[in-house]
Amino acid sequence: MSTSPRMTAPTESQPASGPAPLPPSSRTRIPESRTFRFKNRLLGRPLNTDQLEHERLGNPTALAVFASDNLSSAAYATEEILHTLLLAGIGIVAFQYVLPITFAMIAVLIILILSYRQTIKAYPSAGGAYIVTKDNLGVLPAQVAGVSLLTDYILVVAVSVSAGTAALYSVFSELYPYRVLIALGFIAIIAIGNLRGVKESGRIFAVPTYAFVVAMAMMIGYGLYKAGFGGGLNEITIDEMNPEQAHEALGMSAVGWFLVLHAFASGGAAVTGVEAISNGVPAFREPSWKNAAKTLVIMGTMLGLMFIGISWLASELHTIPVTGKTVIAQIAEAVYGSSGLGRVMFVFTQFATMLILVLAANTGFADFPRLASFQAEDSFMPRQLTKRGHRLVYSNGILALAGIAAALVIILSASVSKLIPLYAIGVFLSFTLSQLGMARRHLRIKEPGWKVGLLINGTGAIVTAVVTLVISATKFLDGAWVIIAMIPIFVWVVVRLNHQYEAEKAELEEDATLAATAPILKRHAVIVLLAKIDRTSARAIQYARTLNPDRLSAVHIAVDEQHAEELSKEWSTLPLKQIPLDVRECPDRRINRTVLEVVSEMAADGDTEVTILIPRREYRSAWHRLLHDRTADGIAKALGDVPHANVTFVPYHLTRTSKGQRIHKVEHGAMSGTSGIHH
Amino acid sequence: MSTSPRMTAPTESQPASGPAPLPPSSRTRIPESRTFRFKNRLLGRPLNTDQLEHERLGNPTALAVFASDNLSSAAYATEEILHTLLLAGIGIVAFQYVLPITFAMIAVLIILILSYRQTIKAYPSAGGAYIVTKDNLGVLPAQVAGVSLLTDYILVVAVSVSAGTAALYSVFSELYPYRVLIALGFIAIIAIGNLRGVKESGRIFAVPTYAFVVAMAMMIGYGLYKAGFGGGLNEITIDEMNPEQAHEALGMSAVGWFLVLHAFASGGAAVTGVEAISNGVPAFREPSWKNAAKTLVIMGTMLGLMFIGISWLASELHTIPVTGKTVIAQIAEAVYGSSGLGRVMFVFTQFATMLILVLAANTGFADFPRLASFQAEDSFMPRQLTKRGHRLVYSNGILALAGIAAALVIILSASVSKLIPLYAIGVFLSFTLSQLGMARRHLRIKEPGWKVGLLINGTGAIVTAVVTLVISATKFLDGAWVIIAMIPIFVWVVVRLNHQYEAEKAELEEDATLAATAPILKRHAVIVLLAKIDRTSARAIQYARTLNPDRLSAVHIAVDEQHAEELSKEWSTLPLKQIPLDVRECPDRRINRTVLEVVSEMAADGDTEVTILIPRREYRSAWHRLLHDRTADGIAKALGDVPHANVTFVPYHLTRTSKGQRIHKVEHGAMSGTSGIHH
Repeated sequence: MSTSPRMTAPTESQPASGPAPLPPSSRTRIPESRTFRFKNRLLGRPLNTDQLEHERLGNPTALAVFASDNLSSAAYATEEILHTLLLAGIGIVAFQYVLPITFAMIAVLIILILSYRQTIKAYPSAGGAYIVTKDNLGVLPAQVAGVSLLTDYILVVAVSVSAGTAALYSVFSELYPYRVLIALGFIAIIAIGNLRGVKESGRIFAVPTYAFVVAMAMMIGYGLYKAGFGGGLNEITIDEMNPEQAHEALGMSAVGWFLVLHAFASGGAAVTGVEAISNGVPAFREPSWKNAAKTLVIMGTMLGLMFIGISWLASELHTIPVTGKTVIAQIAEAVYGSSGLGRVMFVFTQFATMLILVLAANTGFADFPRLASFQAEDSFMPRQLTKRGHRLVYSNGILALAGIAAALVIILSASVSKLIPLYAIGVFLSFTLSQLGMARRHLRIKEPGWKVGLLINGTGAIVTAVVTLVISATKFLDGAWVIIAMIPIFVWVVVRLNHQYEAEKAELEEDATLAATAPILKRHAVIVLLAKIDRTSARAIQYARTLNPDRLSAVHIAVDEQHAEELSKEWSTLPLKQIPLDVRECPDRRINRTVLEVVSEMAADGDTEVTILIPRREYRSAWHRLLHDRTADGIAKALGDVPHANVTFVPYHLTRTSKGQRIHKVEHGAMSGTSGIHH
Repeated sequence: MSTSPRMTAPTESQPASGPAPLPPSSRTRIPESRTFRFKNRLLGRPLNTDQLEHERLGNPTALAVFASDNLSSAAYATEEILHTLLLAGIGIVAFQYVLPITFAMIAVLIILILSYRQTIKAYPSAGGAYIVTKDNLGVLPAQVAGVSLLTDYILVVAVSVSAGTAALYSVFSELYPYRVLIALGFIAIIAIGNLRGVKESGRIFAVPTYAFVVAMAMMIGYGLYKAGFGGGLNEITIDEMNPEQAHEALGMSAVGWFLVLHAFASGGAAVTGVEAISNGVPAFREPSWKNAAKTLVIMGTMLGLMFIGISWLASELHTIPVTGKTVIAQIAEAVYGSSGLGRVMFVFTQFATMLILVLAANTGFADFPRLASFQAEDSFMPRQLTKRGHRLVYSNGILALAGIAAALVIILSASVSKLIPLYAIGVFLSFTLSQLGMARRHLRIKEPGWKVGLLINGTGAIVTAVVTLVISATKFLDGAWVIIAMIPIFVWVVVRLNHQYEAEKAELEEDATLAATAPILKRHAVIVLLAKIDRTSARAIQYARTLNPDRLSAVHIAVDEQHAEELSKEWSTLPLKQIPLDVRECPDRRINRTVLEVVSEMAADGDTEVTILIPRREYRSAWHRLLHDRTADGIAKALGDVPHANVTFVPYHLTRTSKGQRIHKVEHGAMSGTSGIHH
């Protein structure tokens, strides 16, 4: 063996590069791992990074893609307003308050849409609250916005799948007991869809979104017709609902400001989802910001009309939120009746509602991983969230979101009314920050028309700040306190995380170039850990000799004295006189610890590089691994603490007992494979 | 750096041995791991192997240590006989059958004790069924005996803690709903006690065992007195029990042979635990086999008297097994009454019963790990079961037993009646094999008195075989089928396991000596995997240069093209012209796979030793580890399949961000620690 390394100097102009990538045919020679094959089956063929691209969408399609979160709120917002009012026991009077509260909420919506038009214009590439806040107010406020939005994306998923499940069991009441399972099933389907990488192709989005819009338009339209020409709408009698719950809901108490604000806060869920379009501007056809702004206005108008229509019907029909049947379902039944065609329309309405709600959950899955990856790129979230998976999506973010949302659904039994108090705070907080950021930007840049812009975004900031406060105060005891407590804690955690990453980076990069050319240590000692003399240890000894170190020894950790003596005797008969066997007694049977001591001694002078060779049997099947313990891994872990202790696993491949395909069948001298610590 | 290794040749007469073990003071220098500190707190100071010793016990203490399993059966055997009879709905007639069945079972007990006296004499060091069967009938029948006994030890634990819990909730009926939790608590306490290494010191065993014997003696004695002189025993009226259940139990149907045999089978649980003394002969004072045999007879007599006494009382008092109160508890209440002193005696009886039952579970914990280690030493169980833990006990066996028993308790809701059908088959099967083995031994060795011995063991074998069949047949549908199906499957598994181990051993040891001296491979290529140029990769490069290979290159797997270009540029400015940087494109982001391809190419000629250096940041806290992904481990695992691919982790220790104590603060050149793959 030659001891002079063969060197290849890269030229300056042409960066060093290795052999060309393997052609596809040679790639297939190495068998794929089980995990990979499973992923392939579940998620489809892997995508290459260069396949990352965005389709441009026409406005109608873009509306379908980005508006589901927003429009679907119409499915539960009225119900939640009613729920709050009736729970307070103000009786029949409640129905008089539904429409005014709806109008107040729509006023907020109008202000938001005007504000977001400004944002879209200013940030045509990505105008989410995180980026706007970071750009104008700084990194720290951006973390508040980011964390708030993340919590709300989780809630979008939980609320939407729960409401979608409610739409389903309003038709098939026998499904009610399985609501948690159904909601979890929805989450699983959406998560897998997103891991596969649902294309933003819009077609699959268009059907449910427009079906829902059509269903609502027909229901409201037919309701209006009946009210005007068809003999009027009949109030739903209590017998048609769950009578016990309904009677309870219609008790009497006084109406106070707090209650009205509380009901308003419950309706706040309706105007979330405005953010989605501002994140998606680049997906619009050119001039993209103008198309996006136009779509935003259309979306707002649609939501407003549906929201007013549903609230009007609810107050006319005196629907009472009961367990097992949503307000929308009650309205649809009341409007259409239960005759043949009426029943068909009712079922259509419910299915359309369910589908758009599931799509709305999908919006959470589109936004959460992207925002989390932005934050992770800024080192405010675990680095793993920036990693694109098998199908180019942020798999870790998707899995995290699915897990947390599923936990929420389980804890709160897929109940929309229990989830709603947690919802909307995060969104409105991020709205506020984003609008403040925009206001500041107008002041700073002073582009043409900045005064109007400032007025709009300033109003937006004030209104959203007030709404944030109203929601926090009125829903505090219902559960909002959890979110109010969580956001600062979460912000603290991400800031700490950031310090951690920064400190590490600073340490790792300090004088890195100098360190790379530091002289090597004076000595190199190699030890082979061996349990007995077999092919695994033989392989390690062979490799050890390749390293040609200053000092080479075999070490046996003696747990069993008799075995150690036999080993010593056998060793002395081997023609390996140049390698001494060091038998270390280990009366306390703590093998890792004893190895740690041996290595610490050797490395103690600080000028010795110690290489610890651990023979390791390699198995292809989990069954084989089960039969042997993890001593090797344990030793490697224990040695992680010693500077200059380098652990090498020298593999030995069992042939006879392994049924797996072999990659290369290479024989050399008396032996082929490698080895394993065993006992 | 010198390249000639410093060699030390061991002399023939004196086996090579390394530096003397560190004195205790230097041992303490290296901080202990968290796991170790936790173990120390929970289990006590670690024990050295030479502290393994056995105390010799006097007969009264030995009785307490080994008899708890056997004697405690008296606490539930009568109840289970009654349960079977009454469940069949034969009404009041049932009580006439209890005593005859008890006598039949005691006849079996007598035969067993006579047989086991023979065994103890023949195998004074350890006379368990596994060893006796292996010695006389061969390895394969021994596996049947071993597997049968292991399943029964699991059941001893489950049955005993469940019955102990029943003794407790018979006093405090409000604990009934928490029975599963209480039973699991008992298992946890016993398991921890055994992991600590409960000394066979007998004192803690003596109190509950003798307390139980005294409690039973007093109860039976006082019952006899009342029956003879005290105005007779009054039947328990149904009102005192759970009336509904009691009425149901007293329906009427015919008595058949099957029922009697079934009831007999249910009583079979009473005579288990005979094995314990035969396993423990070496713990007796000399002449140990004689003392053991004497103790065996005393134990049998005690059990017999208690069993008869309880069965007699049960048939006089017409106790009916009901939920929430054991038969023993009903008897004690009926005998003592509920007045002041009577209540005290009742509570004492119940506590003594509970304690001996918990001790009986402890017997399972003494026997299971030992038997499992015997089988593992013969390569019929996973090797890990032979490993002595922190306190010299077979920790893995203890944990496995605790886990399986806990699962059983949970599945069967800590119900003794549900567990009993699974019980006793294994014991009687192993009894049969053991007696057969003894019979064969008499025929083979023909020691003085062998004809009597053959008669005794032959009778024993026949009787236990018949009992095995009776239990299997009558309890088959109650759940025994599970055990009857499991035993052959389990035997098949251990035999397959054994083939596996043998095949591996054969392969690993074939020409091992020759292999150890095989010539080294022609070439040695080293690659450093690097993500960027920082101290972690600098450290790896430094180590790589120490190895002085034929070919040394740095490899960057390019997931992000832009980053790769920057890296190439930076690399070209470093004064490391001798190390080319190989940038590998990885458009599918499968880093492990790409590394596998690079290494496979290099090792393809079969004559190149490839060392892959993976820089790895080392963290002391789990929090730190969470922030970084496990790319390094993944790569190492993927490379396990390539022969001659040796993975080395080159550690870099972060100082600033780690709050843990440093072991050695060694600085060399511009740098100290080592490194981590990161992204």
